[in-house]
Amino acid sequence: MTHPRSVGFVEAQKAHFDEPLPLKAGRVLPQYDLVYETYGTLNAARSNAVLVCHALSGSHHVAGVYRDDPHNVGWWDNLVGPGKPLDTEKFFVIGVNNLGGCFGSTGPVSINPATGKPWGADFPFVTVEDWVNAQARLADRLGIERFAAVIGGSLGGMQALSWSLQYPERVRHVLAIATAPKLSAQNIAFNEVARQAILSDPDFHGGNYYEHGVVPKQGLRLARMIGHITYLSDDAMAEKFGRALRHGIMRYSYDIEFEIESYLRYQGDKFARFFDANTYLLTTRALDYYDPAADYGGDLAAAFARAEAAFLVVAFTTDWRFSPARSREIVSALVHSEKDVCYAEIDSKAGHDSFLLEHPRYHAVLRAYFNRIEV
Amino acid sequence: MTHPRSVGFVEAQKAHFDEPLPLKAGRVLPQYDLVYETYGTLNAARSNAVLVCHALSGSHHVAGVYRDDPHNVGWWDNLVGPGKPLDTEKFFVIGVNNLGGCFGSTGPVSINPATGKPWGADFPFVTVEDWVNAQARLADRLGIERFAAVIGGSLGGMQALSWSLQYPERVRHVLAIATAPKLSAQNIAFNEVARQAILSDPDFHGGNYYEHGVVPKQGLRLARMIGHITYLSDDAMAEKFGRALRHGIMRYSYDIEFEIESYLRYQGDKFARFFDANTYLLTTRALDYYDPAADYGGDLAAAFARAEAAFLVVAFTTDWRFSPARSREIVSALVHSEKDVCYAEIDSKAGHDSFLLEHPRYHAVLRAYFNRIEV
Repeated sequence: MTHPRSVGFVEAQKAHFDEPLPLKAGRVLPQYDLVYETYGTLNAARSNAVLVCHALSGSHHVAGVYRDDPHNVGWWDNLVGPGKPLDTEKFFVIGVNNLGGCFGSTGPVSINPATGKPWGADFPFVTVEDWVNAQARLADRLGIERFAAVIGGSLGGMQALSWSLQYPERVRHVLAIATAPKLSAQNIAFNEVARQAILSDPDFHGGNYYEHGVVPKQGLRLARMIGHITYLSDDAMAEKFGRALRHGIMRYSYDIEFEIESYLRYQGDKFARFFDANTYLLTTRALDYYDPAADYGGDLAAAFARAEAAFLVVAFTTDWRFSPARSREIVSALVHSEKDVCYAEIDSKAGHDSFLLEHPRYHAVLRAYFNRIEV
Repeated sequence: MTHPRSVGFVEAQKAHFDEPLPLKAGRVLPQYDLVYETYGTLNAARSNAVLVCHALSGSHHVAGVYRDDPHNVGWWDNLVGPGKPLDTEKFFVIGVNNLGGCFGSTGPVSINPATGKPWGADFPFVTVEDWVNAQARLADRLGIERFAAVIGGSLGGMQALSWSLQYPERVRHVLAIATAPKLSAQNIAFNEVARQAILSDPDFHGGNYYEHGVVPKQGLRLARMIGHITYLSDDAMAEKFGRALRHGIMRYSYDIEFEIESYLRYQGDKFARFFDANTYLLTTRALDYYDPAADYGGDLAAAFARAEAAFLVVAFTTDWRFSPARSREIVSALVHSEKDVCYAEIDSKAGHDSFLLEHPRYHAVLRAYFNRIEV
């Protein structure tokens, strides 16, 4: 274990659901599995459960490591553990891989019972609201009537917000970090280019590449490279890479000249080796579609009227994917809706990715907020 | 003619050069053609010539229309013409397609005399400095010893700046618009993803796609889509497209749902039909490589010491590709180098593309600046 105060060795669990799940887009998922992990202990009052929602490339593996894969550290391990800001000595923490995912929950790589083949392109569109509904069923299964808190960053923050609207009585605190109340045209544009990279890859085969024994690696690689540019701030990139040359001198070629190129290619290649392209497509669409104010004529304050939770909203100064202005839209709507809301705008150089990092002031804010939650 | 005060019908001309051109990257172009257009009349003193340098997707066709293609209006027609800010009744204006281009000047689509086949991937890397050297030879050919002004936006602005450093005595005024003294890591990152989209297209064939009777359309399309996101501001996209739905309702598919998707696909498809992929690659590398301060230990003021021109630097508030901060780096270096410099920061919503638009305050600044140039 390289991390002090780690939850240590963890094991993923699987819950099977036979009751069909009606989806927002109209289709019904007849049955499904959800893979999840838990850290800490549910108290007798069942009042200390915290749900951690993941973003585009995340999973149920939030903290700790696996006995047979000790380098596979959970994606939010710096936050979740004994004595950490989300303290597993106080809270019972749950991470769950969303429907449509590629880490064990039912998704495009799963076998469609109706055909005996992978769902592939026929896997139904899933939305933030569908994920929350599925998470609520998992909560039922685990005997959790009401969460002490639901927390998430980016797309995870959208799920946390949606919990307060879909199940107002089932969540006491919502922590929405580096997120937005809906995507902007520019956000959608970046998603669209990423999708087109995958859809136009000859190895995509209309989404049924599994049958062809290939994966649309190039498309997925490009999608991830584009994504990475939006996760980092201009400043962070300048500081980390600047115009540093890989070989000290210009070589005049399309091979790697600048260190930033090496970084992007590495990130893209790595991602393309383990992530499923159909899941990437589905997830970017879930982002595009999320817009809780849509049913209220665009009035976000009206949408939040039914929320009962208290809110912590956190943004990072150099995040240009979901800038502080987007978080302030959420805060403003909550204030107008007379909700209990705290807002922290953290001075960070790291852009959107800040929400995953161990920034002292950011973690201090989360620690203080979790400390005051009674269980 | 739809445009009032147009230069009217124009004709492209071709100049052939037999004297080999040594290139910055070390190779020599044995012979080459430059395609160009001129508007207005060179005065007897040959003191009224203005060179217009083009950016990534531009060409020599700056103003007017062709008799056999009356809808093909020059890319800066709103600026250049009788009575327009760059007034062709006063100035003799020249547009030239850069070396490596795909609109008639020698480039990857041209026949390599050594092989009798298109240059393709074997066309040498060309830099901003090489373009300026070639433009200087064209100026010699046209009998222009000294330009009244050299003007350009974006990559064109880099050429204008480079004129003041490579041929200090041959340019009286430099107008550098929406440009930067060098690319940032983020700028290079966007170029790199665009290049990877082209290089990984199976129809690229290592750059020799001409022989295969195909073009790497999908890669070029993706490259242009990425580019377009960076040309528009977040605000402009929000105002122009927002989250407007193509069909009024969500259809839950990867076809066009949002208007912004339709726009990007249209722009990508259009571009892929006429632009050459090798030229795109070469040009993005010319952008990456440009760094006039590199030979001065990164000291841009020292680099500008030898300049003799007066400068107008223009930036646009919502340009995030080359933000005003980048223009201010140029201005600051010129001030420290005790040059004659004016700076205008134009309040525009349109992002980087502003430099191509007919913005009243922007055009007023250019008009005033050109008016004061004596010829």
